[in-house]
Amino acid sequence: MKAKVRFEPDHQEVEVEIGCTIEEAARSGGVRLEESFCGGKGTCGKCRVVVRGAVSEPSGVEKKVLAPGLLTEGIRLACQAQVRGDLTVVTAPDLMNVILTEGEVGRVDFDPVVRKHYLEIPEPSLEDQRSDFHRLRDAVGRDLDPSLEVVRKIPETLRAGGFRVTAVLRGDLLMDLEPGDTTCQVYGVAFDVGTTTVVGYLWDLGQGRHLATASAMNPQASFGADVISRINYTMENKDGLEDLHQAVVGVMNEIIDDLVQEAEVLRRDIYEVTVVGNTCMHHLFFKISPKYLALAPYVMAWKDPLSAPAREAGLQVNPGAVVYYLPNIAGFVGADTVGVLLATGLDRTQKVKLVVDLGTNGEIVLGWAEEMLACSTAAGPAFEGGQISCGMRAAQGAIDHVRWDSEHGLQVSTIGGGFPRGICGSGLVDAVAVMLRAGVLDTSGRILDPADVPEGAARYVVKGERGNEFVLSQGGPDGRGRVTLTQGDIRQVQLAKGAIYAGTRVLMEELGIEIGEISEVLLAGAMGNYFDKESARTIGLVPALPVERIRSVGNGAGAGAQMALCSIKERRRAEEIARKVQHVVLSKSPRFNQEFMEAMFFPEPVERHGKGTRQSTGIR
Amino acid sequence: MKAKVRFEPDHQEVEVEIGCTIEEAARSGGVRLEESFCGGKGTCGKCRVVVRGAVSEPSGVEKKVLAPGLLTEGIRLACQAQVRGDLTVVTAPDLMNVILTEGEVGRVDFDPVVRKHYLEIPEPSLEDQRSDFHRLRDAVGRDLDPSLEVVRKIPETLRAGGFRVTAVLRGDLLMDLEPGDTTCQVYGVAFDVGTTTVVGYLWDLGQGRHLATASAMNPQASFGADVISRINYTMENKDGLEDLHQAVVGVMNEIIDDLVQEAEVLRRDIYEVTVVGNTCMHHLFFKISPKYLALAPYVMAWKDPLSAPAREAGLQVNPGAVVYYLPNIAGFVGADTVGVLLATGLDRTQKVKLVVDLGTNGEIVLGWAEEMLACSTAAGPAFEGGQISCGMRAAQGAIDHVRWDSEHGLQVSTIGGGFPRGICGSGLVDAVAVMLRAGVLDTSGRILDPADVPEGAARYVVKGERGNEFVLSQGGPDGRGRVTLTQGDIRQVQLAKGAIYAGTRVLMEELGIEIGEISEVLLAGAMGNYFDKESARTIGLVPALPVERIRSVGNGAGAGAQMALCSIKERRRAEEIARKVQHVVLSKSPRFNQEFMEAMFFPEPVERHGKGTRQSTGIR
Repeated sequence: MKAKVRFEPDHQEVEVEIGCTIEEAARSGGVRLEESFCGGKGTCGKCRVVVRGAVSEPSGVEKKVLAPGLLTEGIRLACQAQVRGDLTVVTAPDLMNVILTEGEVGRVDFDPVVRKHYLEIPEPSLEDQRSDFHRLRDAVGRDLDPSLEVVRKIPETLRAGGFRVTAVLRGDLLMDLEPGDTTCQVYGVAFDVGTTTVVGYLWDLGQGRHLATASAMNPQASFGADVISRINYTMENKDGLEDLHQAVVGVMNEIIDDLVQEAEVLRRDIYEVTVVGNTCMHHLFFKISPKYLALAPYVMAWKDPLSAPAREAGLQVNPGAVVYYLPNIAGFVGADTVGVLLATGLDRTQKVKLVVDLGTNGEIVLGWAEEMLACSTAAGPAFEGGQISCGMRAAQGAIDHVRWDSEHGLQVSTIGGGFPRGICGSGLVDAVAVMLRAGVLDTSGRILDPADVPEGAARYVVKGERGNEFVLSQGGPDGRGRVTLTQGDIRQVQLAKGAIYAGTRVLMEELGIEIGEISEVLLAGAMGNYFDKESARTIGLVPALPVERIRSVGNGAGAGAQMALCSIKERRRAEEIARKVQHVVLSKSPRFNQEFMEAMFFPEPVERHGKGTRQSTGIR
Repeated sequence: MKAKVRFEPDHQEVEVEIGCTIEEAARSGGVRLEESFCGGKGTCGKCRVVVRGAVSEPSGVEKKVLAPGLLTEGIRLACQAQVRGDLTVVTAPDLMNVILTEGEVGRVDFDPVVRKHYLEIPEPSLEDQRSDFHRLRDAVGRDLDPSLEVVRKIPETLRAGGFRVTAVLRGDLLMDLEPGDTTCQVYGVAFDVGTTTVVGYLWDLGQGRHLATASAMNPQASFGADVISRINYTMENKDGLEDLHQAVVGVMNEIIDDLVQEAEVLRRDIYEVTVVGNTCMHHLFFKISPKYLALAPYVMAWKDPLSAPAREAGLQVNPGAVVYYLPNIAGFVGADTVGVLLATGLDRTQKVKLVVDLGTNGEIVLGWAEEMLACSTAAGPAFEGGQISCGMRAAQGAIDHVRWDSEHGLQVSTIGGGFPRGICGSGLVDAVAVMLRAGVLDTSGRILDPADVPEGAARYVVKGERGNEFVLSQGGPDGRGRVTLTQGDIRQVQLAKGAIYAGTRVLMEELGIEIGEISEVLLAGAMGNYFDKESARTIGLVPALPVERIRSVGNGAGAGAQMALCSIKERRRAEEIARKVQHVVLSKSPRFNQEFMEAMFFPEPVERHGKGTRQSTGIR
């Protein structure tokens, strides 16, 4: 006997023999399932699908591998479940396609806080006069807590859908009720709100699939480049807090626009938003005065995870949607750092690691599962392309990598491969490393005159209006596309890397460890920059460790926000991390200023002297 | 040694010997405490006060009588607690001064859902950088869940109050945060929203004191006199639901205005609102379509208790306040009936009782603790003074009682004692009873011609434009103050009492009981009418039982709303009642129409024949 099996979202339909597995049906229709590790034994759990229709009872293996909650929602293993008659299969995702390709992240259990339930509800009759809500609650099978707005929708929605409706649940909260079966449309957005840049990630929360990423500059920058100047703005202007709140929420709504257009989904189908950002961004996003972050004794208004109606925060998504901001650690070590730790798994490692997040503030965390120390330094926006004359964020046209050898000279690559439009953080670190190795810079950070620069490199140095410049791209005859680094740019890099360096030293002292005890250095960048480890070591941004102990992990904060979006378990882990991390106040450390002065110097470059065995002396 | 004891709200200060009890201190200052039953043994618990300052540790008796929660809030027994130094005593209430003087109500445990806590919070320092919220939560000593709006207030409120603030709590919900000590200002309003009239009761939720009552006509009446015509209005007009919602919320806000002006308190200090009303009023209040209440199979959108932000419902009170609508029983037996049952204690009695609520719909409940049957009949607004030519609600100038004897003739009394302006429900029942006894009406309800009326009564009957009229008040020469009952008015009363009668009969049949098994009849009126039991029996509104088995209990629904406002326990009881009561659909009962036809006749009056022993035959 034959049966029809329909595969979604591929709209593929096949006719198969009853009794075959769903995996066999998929193969016969050319539908690609996630590749399994176990050869169809059902033990790896990779071939999860959602099945609706005539399917076999769960096998013993399925009961073992799939949580009971998953089974009741129709999630099955394609290699185990057998076709018993006509049915529909939604090819569910091998979730969370490791956001950080090189990260610790491993597999994230896909278990979002929002779920859609399709319900076929018995219609009322004189014999069954249960209230509309009672009827709905009985169909879901547990207590529900709807907002008044949703209560008002219940009678008409039930009848518009002929008593076939989809309930959107967040725990007991009934977020929305929609006529018909809309279980395929359930989305969430994770945001990384940086001081300089804002990135949004759209996820399909039914399928556990990343759909789109979009980013933009944080328009708060026009009120002040760093958090302190923005806090001052809120104190000096009557509507200052409102202005900064509107600015960030405005750009987040624009990013949502970009995301839904790219993925061709609807705003109203976005039910959950997670956000990471530093503590000042947190306060401004929620329109909480950040004033006391900047005034002694520098306390946060709010440290814990904070959930609020997305609409009250100003986000234009489903009216019932909730926004969840991950917890902060301290006034200047925010939820973005929690996100980085979540993504890099510092809370799970037994070896000492150093995690550096190169945002406008540089956050540094040193430690392992048992003890984690964090501090924040005002690195400035250099590593996000800010306050650099030709700086830009890591977008189309940004120089992201720079190479040099005496044979080929200078080589630059750009994001997207086109003509250079500017330079982003990873390009900047490379360029400074190249300048050091090529003898263009001395260890004090001075760009030498062309005459003093070794042959081969001299032609890239020109005298500009503001002193010597290093030319990365000549640009066209009209000057467009010309990308240079000025002496001022180099000073910004020195300040930034000096702050990071000094902070790292203080944490090492607090933890009582030596450089050799650091098993790994993880470099995260707010804009998803993948920094070159060799370059980072060359300029002394990271400790002078063997290069294989240095890893660049892209936007760890954004990855953490996405993990919290896709998994309740990861959310709980984030909360645990925020409780565990101890904050070190650098201003209280007598050594910080001294370390900072010393750290602004560049290490002696190794390559220039051709002595490959000598370690650079970035951090002693 | 002496100490100063200050009594609030009396502003009385006395100097007493240290070691005396607070009761003794009160007596020496002439401050009246609630009279105790136990002669100062501490066992009756009536002399509860709130004490702040140097007072003795709780005695064993106090620990036994007062819940631990009360002790930690400073609630003590005046007969037990001893003065140890200067202190302030707030004479707390022997709460809930039995709203229904004759009711079952007994004592209500004063335990409102909203509490104010005054907190003195340690200021932050570099050594104590806990977040503002963390600091606040630690001071309260448990988890708190604030709205985003309250989160935004925390930093400035803490500092405006010098870290001395008052937290307004509703369970874990942090409703508001106020600088300084505002614990004396915490109020709530209970509403009885009737089809014809709306009554509001203002309570001091700190002291457990009733402060004011205000009422008004329900302006929805201009859209339709009864619930069915109002439901039709919502179906026939695009903005019909909005119109009716605005009408009722508008009058509730006006009543709140009256209440706060009378009691001299502030709207923003009202933190909790409870509401009872029929199911249609429930839906209209929350702006839920009542359409399906009127269309077969007549289902409610919502039956359960419903809590929502008062602001979302449209009430102008504290922005964080919550409105709690008691649960409904069925489409036409609403939370008002639950309120009446709560106040009359039908759920606690072991004897069969009949409870009749004479609103625009007449709700009838028959049963005892184990089994309660309820039905609703369209009695019309006659008993609230509606659709009666000179009808009015029970307000200043309404004729509320009418007497007759052959010696003195007709005697009327008015509310407030002044000149008659109209007649309210209780006056109407009296007047019809008088007309029957005086031989003005026959049992078919016809007003006889003056010539056919026994001497003495004939002078009160005149021929009017619309037939014979019975004159209750001649009024002034300009016709003002003239109050009469027309033939049409009598027909309204017949319809109303016939509907109640027939409903009662059907419930008796369903429960399988005879009239003699009814131990008590409780008559409640939406506008607080105290109906004359003898008159009610004379016109056949209640069964023909000995008059001592009939009791008139005023506005039971409003009393229930107040009980739910003042006590979480009573709220839980209301929810239990709503689950227990079984609804009987009169339209499904084949006997109802037949009973209704018969019930429109009046019983033969006993007194007219001078045979005092004969029972009237109101209900067989």
